[in-house]
Amino acid sequence: MSKQNPFDQKKKAILEEINSLEPDLSPKGTIDQLCLPIMHLINSHKDMVTTSSCSGRISVFVEGEKLINREEAKSGGKGLGGRWLFVTHEQDKVLNWLDKISDTEQIQFLPADDTTNEFDNSVRYVLYKYEPFILHVKCRDFQMASKLLNVAMSCGFRESGIGSNNIVAIRINIKLDVPIGFINTKNNNTLTFFVSKQYINNILNKLTLSKFIENKKKMNELYATIDKEIISSLNVQSESKETKEERRERKRREGLERQRQLRNKMSDKNA
Amino acid sequence: MSKQNPFDQKKKAILEEINSLEPDLSPKGTIDQLCLPIMHLINSHKDMVTTSSCSGRISVFVEGEKLINREEAKSGGKGLGGRWLFVTHEQDKVLNWLDKISDTEQIQFLPADDTTNEFDNSVRYVLYKYEPFILHVKCRDFQMASKLLNVAMSCGFRESGIGSNNIVAIRINIKLDVPIGFINTKNNNTLTFFVSKQYINNILNKLTLSKFIENKKKMNELYATIDKEIISSLNVQSESKETKEERRERKRREGLERQRQLRNKMSDKNA
Repeated sequence: MSKQNPFDQKKKAILEEINSLEPDLSPKGTIDQLCLPIMHLINSHKDMVTTSSCSGRISVFVEGEKLINREEAKSGGKGLGGRWLFVTHEQDKVLNWLDKISDTEQIQFLPADDTTNEFDNSVRYVLYKYEPFILHVKCRDFQMASKLLNVAMSCGFRESGIGSNNIVAIRINIKLDVPIGFINTKNNNTLTFFVSKQYINNILNKLTLSKFIENKKKMNELYATIDKEIISSLNVQSESKETKEERRERKRREGLERQRQLRNKMSDKNA
Repeated sequence: MSKQNPFDQKKKAILEEINSLEPDLSPKGTIDQLCLPIMHLINSHKDMVTTSSCSGRISVFVEGEKLINREEAKSGGKGLGGRWLFVTHEQDKVLNWLDKISDTEQIQFLPADDTTNEFDNSVRYVLYKYEPFILHVKCRDFQMASKLLNVAMSCGFRESGIGSNNIVAIRINIKLDVPIGFINTKNNNTLTFFVSKQYINNILNKLTLSKFIENKKKMNELYATIDKEIISSLNVQSESKETKEERRERKRREGLERQRQLRNKMSDKNA
């Protein structure tokens, strides 16, 4: 293996980067902790390498200024001066995002029957989103990409697809996308919610937690199916064909998987 | 062309079905009117055929009974007894969905500061969704699928991908996914909204209209780019290679495109 083909070169570079960004598995690392088991699993296969990932997250976002041209006005775009009020990938931080925002922002709640505010095309909305797990995997060839796609689809990741360069995007439709407020230009540009505190605490946050749980469950299902359909069957056939890096990845993965199972057992006991 | 290959056979069968379902372009036809121009455009190419489409829609949905097992409880699933309260693909019908539902359902609005209701895992939510245009296109080979995918991605249809059998799914992320109410088991299972009438009329419906507009704009952009990058350049090169069916499709498309441009001009004048 002294002369590597382009896929192997790329894979080696990516693995080095992943490992360097992962000094202690701390939540502050760039890669979401929850993604690591499935990333290590996939990277233990000689024909696949993960290129980007997100384990799922909530975000609260203020739209930027909209273009004045009516034709170009659109909602949801970043626009000029759009900004994140809050982002987290951690389930534990879902319940207190409103408190967190209140630390730095002036917040008002509109009465439910407010009719004094006009919501025309220029209004800058505040949007609350839950976005699920997404993973991109570069495959050595189209055959590998097809196999991975089929496995992902079979687990319910129905929005998956193969893109250019045999990169498989693994996607699922577990979402929330809720307009919760606006920038009140009549009142000093105050961040103003048109949903109630009760709605946020009793509905949105609880539903978000159920999305996190559903998302995690689907990630586990995907892990198990990739392991069964692609990795384990391969290891039996051709373990000796592993490169040194792949062997290291596999060992790391097997260790992490044991830890994960242990953690799951412990949290089951605590539940 | 007396003996057709499987792709050509399949394409012919699909085109016959499309045309038979489209007696007068009425809105009640199974295929969404807004999809027809782009479908005809794509079907005029000898290596592509559309297999399913949705032009974009809103839906209001009551979740079914949830599974009692906490592990399996999830939100958003259909479950037992889930049902649609309202679905439309038509922009004109967005503003009066609440009236429409009120004709057949008993509806209540919760006070914004309600704290008497518990929202646990068993609650059946009412969800309001906007889902954008989606189109599936079967291509003769991977080369054609890749080309179509690249064109779609270049127009912002970033969630597109190639699936099995060279079927390209063309998708974009223009969504709303909002929990708006629940089935109140303490009050005779009444359909109960925890967002206000003002929120529905002033926020949700207006934002939905802007989604319809954005979606239509992106569909037009996709139409123009497919036409420019794939269809027109091909017609110049190899018009003579068209089959009879493809020529008919192209002629139909060109006629429809002229109608569309005329309509657009007229609606611009009226705006």
